Amino acid sequence: MSLTRLETIQQALRDQQVAAAFIQGKENVFYLTGFRTDPHERMVALIILPNEAPFLIVPGMEKSLVQKAGWTGDILTYSDTDNPWTVLGQALSRYTLKGDSLWVEKRLLPLERAEALQALFSISQMHDAEPALMSLRSIKTEKEIAVLREAASLADFGVQIGVEAIAEGRKEIDILATIEYELKRKGITEMAFQTTVISGANSADPHGKPGTKTIQHGDLVLFDLGVVLDGYCSDITRTVAYGDLTDELRQVYQTVLDAQMGAVSLCKPGTELGALDRKARSIITEAGYGEYFPHRLGHGLGADVHELPSINETNTETLKPGMTFTIEPGIYLPNKGGVRIEDDVLITEDSYELLTKYPKELQIVKPTS
Amino acid sequence: MSLTRLETIQQALRDQQVAAAFIQGKENVFYLTGFRTDPHERMVALIILPNEAPFLIVPGMEKSLVQKAGWTGDILTYSDTDNPWTVLGQALSRYTLKGDSLWVEKRLLPLERAEALQALFSISQMHDAEPALMSLRSIKTEKEIAVLREAASLADFGVQIGVEAIAEGRKEIDILATIEYELKRKGITEMAFQTTVISGANSADPHGKPGTKTIQHGDLVLFDLGVVLDGYCSDITRTVAYGDLTDELRQVYQTVLDAQMGAVSLCKPGTELGALDRKARSIITEAGYGEYFPHRLGHGLGADVHELPSINETNTETLKPGMTFTIEPGIYLPNKGGVRIEDDVLITEDSYELLTKYPKELQIVKPTS
Repeated sequence: MSLTRLETIQQALRDQQVAAAFIQGKENVFYLTGFRTDPHERMVALIILPNEAPFLIVPGMEKSLVQKAGWTGDILTYSDTDNPWTVLGQALSRYTLKGDSLWVEKRLLPLERAEALQALFSISQMHDAEPALMSLRSIKTEKEIAVLREAASLADFGVQIGVEAIAEGRKEIDILATIEYELKRKGITEMAFQTTVISGANSADPHGKPGTKTIQHGDLVLFDLGVVLDGYCSDITRTVAYGDLTDELRQVYQTVLDAQMGAVSLCKPGTELGALDRKARSIITEAGYGEYFPHRLGHGLGADVHELPSINETNTETLKPGMTFTIEPGIYLPNKGGVRIEDDVLITEDSYELLTKYPKELQIVKPTS
Repeated sequence: MSLTRLETIQQALRDQQVAAAFIQGKENVFYLTGFRTDPHERMVALIILPNEAPFLIVPGMEKSLVQKAGWTGDILTYSDTDNPWTVLGQALSRYTLKGDSLWVEKRLLPLERAEALQALFSISQMHDAEPALMSLRSIKTEKEIAVLREAASLADFGVQIGVEAIAEGRKEIDILATIEYELKRKGITEMAFQTTVISGANSADPHGKPGTKTIQHGDLVLFDLGVVLDGYCSDITRTVAYGDLTDELRQVYQTVLDAQMGAVSLCKPGTELGALDRKARSIITEAGYGEYFPHRLGHGLGADVHELPSINETNTETLKPGMTFTIEPGIYLPNKGGVRIEDDVLITEDSYELLTKYPKELQIVKPTS
């Protein structure tokens, strides 16, 4: 798609005398080619050589989708009975490969493929392609930001639908179904991850699963959802109350809100990433809930719903314009309930922009009975 | 969960003098522990030693979910700022490891983790654990079959909802949203893969994506969907007509149906898997559509929606009682439309059972205007 991205990688291959890059992670292939697919066990990979035109290898029946996605480079295809490594080997035999190593995605490349590549290239040295890729991916272009903004707006819409669907005795999964129905009618065919609607004691598990539990007076109701739009993800969490909350849960809510806004307020170029996590964590710890905040503050967001940078207390990198990530502190009181508040944040030239805009003040849904 | 499965693996480790098995694939971990999660980039792994109790390593916040899933063995946890390999190394230091190799999932284990394991165990030999695992997984127990049957029945229901939702001018994505809404209200929180509703010329792409195209008189409408129920997947495809079809598309439909039923009729213990594919392919080829059937006939189905066995023309394995897989021939005529018909099939003691039961004769939905 963008020649510039591919050219950047090719330049790095030449500089570091790398024979080739073999890129097969769904999001990386999308980022470099514009083609996004979920090939299950079938191989879809982009081969980048230092001085030749990059090409894709895909199952034959995906070829038309690759072309529809705008890829104009070469496409190598294989059938379900072909060995894709044989097909790739034949294609590579046209080139004289130079260099003593390969770039691969160490985080994503299965060992089986790593072994096949080593045999194919007669090269045993594998270096990680992702630092270079992630350094490109973590700084979003205006075009990417526009898509992320729209994806975040659809996440806002999802929460709104969910809050409106809350009613006494309604099941978590019914509310979830309503949210996804309305999003899918807007053209969303892929959620960024499994939509979460959990309530009451269920919400006290940071990774709790929605079920047939019905909404009851006094419950916290936690929504965590996001969409994939044109290859980019959103990710929002909001927690609302159904009817009156106990004083303890009100205090928990206010603490999470303070922690979230405290971390957000530090967002600008130059701030250390770890400082965001430490800020939120100190507010929660000072309120006495430190042990109930068991996860990092957030994660990068883009073609993948969890990408770099990681917003944890030990990350010493600094924020840069164009970075997008989540800020999502939470407190989970066993058997009582959990609160998490999450925004998608963009770092601008001198400050930040919240991509998700659904209100964060404690919202009390009035009981219907 | 089932001690027998774990004991089988331990016996193999002892027999082959393997130091340990490191299992981290979502479906394999579920199969061996009863715990199913989508940990994103966080590591969830099962460590099996030849003579010690197996244990799980999971992010701290997943611990309660592991226990809820029924795992009663040891659970090692790590936080977002811990290095899980350090945590694992400390736990392993309690044991004297014997053997000169490790079992890993070569198809699934990322190179980064393979390298970390090699350093941790000071062992460079990695052997593939999946042949042993897949040999267990490919033969389903009565309990697994009962779940697969129910998952297939929910897939039938999804198609029924979809067919009932067809109407002139209705968008593909509206029909998709309706299907998933009704399934989610029945407690399904995870589809087995992205639901497909494609129509007219869109259906001519075997991996086509649903969009805002509206249903038109004369369209084929292709549904491909499945659910995850209690950790097990279903996968059904049906194609119906909206209004009158051209003679050519009618002939295509009949050819696919003949091919599908021809392959199904061969299903019984002892049949070579490749024979199923060749049977369907020969029927389609004889009808003159061979080049428009670009994929294998089917795939195994279980904890993963695509698992072993692979039903392709060169597979010389034989069918065994307890195997479950799909049979899904298709013909895709560019710019005109595609037909695919897919059932989930169980091999019984002397024959087969179709787990999906939605009718397969050409169904013509009467135009609403």
